[in-house]
Amino acid sequence: MRKKITVLGSTGSIGTQTLAAASALGVKVCAISGNRNIELLLTQAGKFEPGFIVITDHDAYRRFIDVYDGDADVLFGEEGLSAICALDVDIVFNALVGFAGLRSTLDIIENGNDLALANKESMVAFGEQIMEKAALRKVSIIPVDSEHSAIFQCIKSEEKRSVRDIILTASGGPFRDLSKNELQNVTVEQALAHPNWNMGRKISVDSATMMNKGLEVIEAKHLFSADKEMIKVVIQRQSIIHSMVGFRDGSYMAHLGVPDMKIPIAYAITYPQRMKTGCGYLDFDTLGSLSFEKADTDKYPCLGLAYQALSYKNSMAVAMNAANEICVEAFLDKRIRFPDIPVIIEKIMEKHVDTDLKLYEDVLRTDMEIREKTTSVLGGL
Amino acid sequence: MRKKITVLGSTGSIGTQTLAAASALGVKVCAISGNRNIELLLTQAGKFEPGFIVITDHDAYRRFIDVYDGDADVLFGEEGLSAICALDVDIVFNALVGFAGLRSTLDIIENGNDLALANKESMVAFGEQIMEKAALRKVSIIPVDSEHSAIFQCIKSEEKRSVRDIILTASGGPFRDLSKNELQNVTVEQALAHPNWNMGRKISVDSATMMNKGLEVIEAKHLFSADKEMIKVVIQRQSIIHSMVGFRDGSYMAHLGVPDMKIPIAYAITYPQRMKTGCGYLDFDTLGSLSFEKADTDKYPCLGLAYQALSYKNSMAVAMNAANEICVEAFLDKRIRFPDIPVIIEKIMEKHVDTDLKLYEDVLRTDMEIREKTTSVLGGL
Repeated sequence: MRKKITVLGSTGSIGTQTLAAASALGVKVCAISGNRNIELLLTQAGKFEPGFIVITDHDAYRRFIDVYDGDADVLFGEEGLSAICALDVDIVFNALVGFAGLRSTLDIIENGNDLALANKESMVAFGEQIMEKAALRKVSIIPVDSEHSAIFQCIKSEEKRSVRDIILTASGGPFRDLSKNELQNVTVEQALAHPNWNMGRKISVDSATMMNKGLEVIEAKHLFSADKEMIKVVIQRQSIIHSMVGFRDGSYMAHLGVPDMKIPIAYAITYPQRMKTGCGYLDFDTLGSLSFEKADTDKYPCLGLAYQALSYKNSMAVAMNAANEICVEAFLDKRIRFPDIPVIIEKIMEKHVDTDLKLYEDVLRTDMEIREKTTSVLGGL
Repeated sequence: MRKKITVLGSTGSIGTQTLAAASALGVKVCAISGNRNIELLLTQAGKFEPGFIVITDHDAYRRFIDVYDGDADVLFGEEGLSAICALDVDIVFNALVGFAGLRSTLDIIENGNDLALANKESMVAFGEQIMEKAALRKVSIIPVDSEHSAIFQCIKSEEKRSVRDIILTASGGPFRDLSKNELQNVTVEQALAHPNWNMGRKISVDSATMMNKGLEVIEAKHLFSADKEMIKVVIQRQSIIHSMVGFRDGSYMAHLGVPDMKIPIAYAITYPQRMKTGCGYLDFDTLGSLSFEKADTDKYPCLGLAYQALSYKNSMAVAMNAANEICVEAFLDKRIRFPDIPVIIEKIMEKHVDTDLKLYEDVLRTDMEIREKTTSVLGGL
């Protein structure tokens, strides 16, 4: 089991649960990072006594150093993140939100640290390169998403060539029982009320549009070096089956459990062992039924867009992701309606000429350009 | 992958499917054995050209050597079985029916051959000793039952101490929708009509009483050196989930697939690899639901008896199994009714004083004694 970890994005949903798991497992937290929630950072600093604290928002950083009287080194911004990615720990959790997590993913790998990846956007934007760099540096990437952790556990000791399909399960999100028409006027509050999982705001909206599943499809392609055709999505509304892998002999392995992120988080720490996590267990006598439904890309166009992106060079996924991040922000700010999200992303993707981005700087530039374009499209609405 | 196999019980349901799998996988069949079905044995001899053919029924043996003009050595009875268990092959399939398979299980292991075990009764009667002998001889036992193959695949590379529970799934058999009262007058034909699996007569009746699941509970205890309390049974009526393993971190691994014995049979040949088996695949878009129901030991008293047997020394399981074999025969011959089966077994078990049987000869003697006792109980009905 791993003994020392660093947690990027420690104040977010995954971050706080990672710290809780670390505490339950008796693991030392060497460094944490947050953006603006300095109250929580102060609490975490007091409880976990990390050697380093990074704050990426400048105002928050200033306020933090005014009030903090502990012994940790308090660092600022991208440089601070880079510094803690270089610390010698057993694994670094990247639980940053959105494309902003890519720089750290690369830093963690370049420093030879194992990576617990909760930031799917970095894999979406730059997956092929990340996997190559990780292989070169002999770094393990342990997925923290419940779906990818499930797939990782199903594949584990199997031969790659035996894998026939990778079946990502999706809850269907809060709007799974609404018709396409009823989706027209859903509110932010409705979008944030996920039926099964307790998550952050961005991922909750992504779950409602199923862009989250689309990003996971792209992530799975890279993480498990799978063909596009091998990756399927099915609605499993109870979120008890966290994903499945089909093999060429007709066998399917599935990972089940209560929908609690502590399970995949703890697994990333304890792998290849398993420890008690304090999570609940399933009672199959009273569980009832597990249902499967087709994931309808007509109702969930974002899922279809993600599959489309897989037919293009990687800048298309960068564009899709950047447009999505801007649209989700706009929806959360009530500047656009829920069904506008896929319409705008599609518009951006249609105009985007795909290229093969092999350098981080190029990915970064494309991301910036698309953000600007999307913002200007939003301005023209 | 294994290249040379021997198949004991080649004319039975598992045996014929094992030969079909061997053929599909291009595996050499070195020896086969059958009891009375010489027509099928002749066909198999012609098709697979084994070096040895064993026939355990004396009349059938005489008739076979009269008509057979191939090159194989044709051997008779127990001695013949012992001889082919000693052949140097990659794995021996023990697909004999009932307690009679125990001698061969021991012979296979003592000869240092790996064992593909479809004969659960040997594990029920003598599991602890079998596992010890297999460990001493460094012999692998690959289970062929769909449930135990599923569990084997779920546990595979996991640490034993991480396993929290072993959840055997059961279809519930042909009478799962009947009330306890309606079970009074079911016919042999109804008992043989299993809803999901196509199996031999003895195991079909065992499925209807759920004694089959009871035997599997005892088999699982030995195969996976589990505590009695860890082994659970749940009704999964679609027979799509073939069994599950729960881990202490809250994770559950499940094995799914179409209900087709070719999958676990092929796996025993190809393990640790997986090959195409010609089996169908699952389509989760159209699968619908997988249901779970409590296995009711009031409705299925045989299952309760098996759990009871686990609280005693191993002669109790021997007694239970012997009484069951006699009762199933009597039911198939229409000498007793379906609900008499558990009543008679329980009567035998109540009077049985359990002992720890460490020698094969003692197991054999106990088995014989209980068969006689059960037969005399049946005579007095």
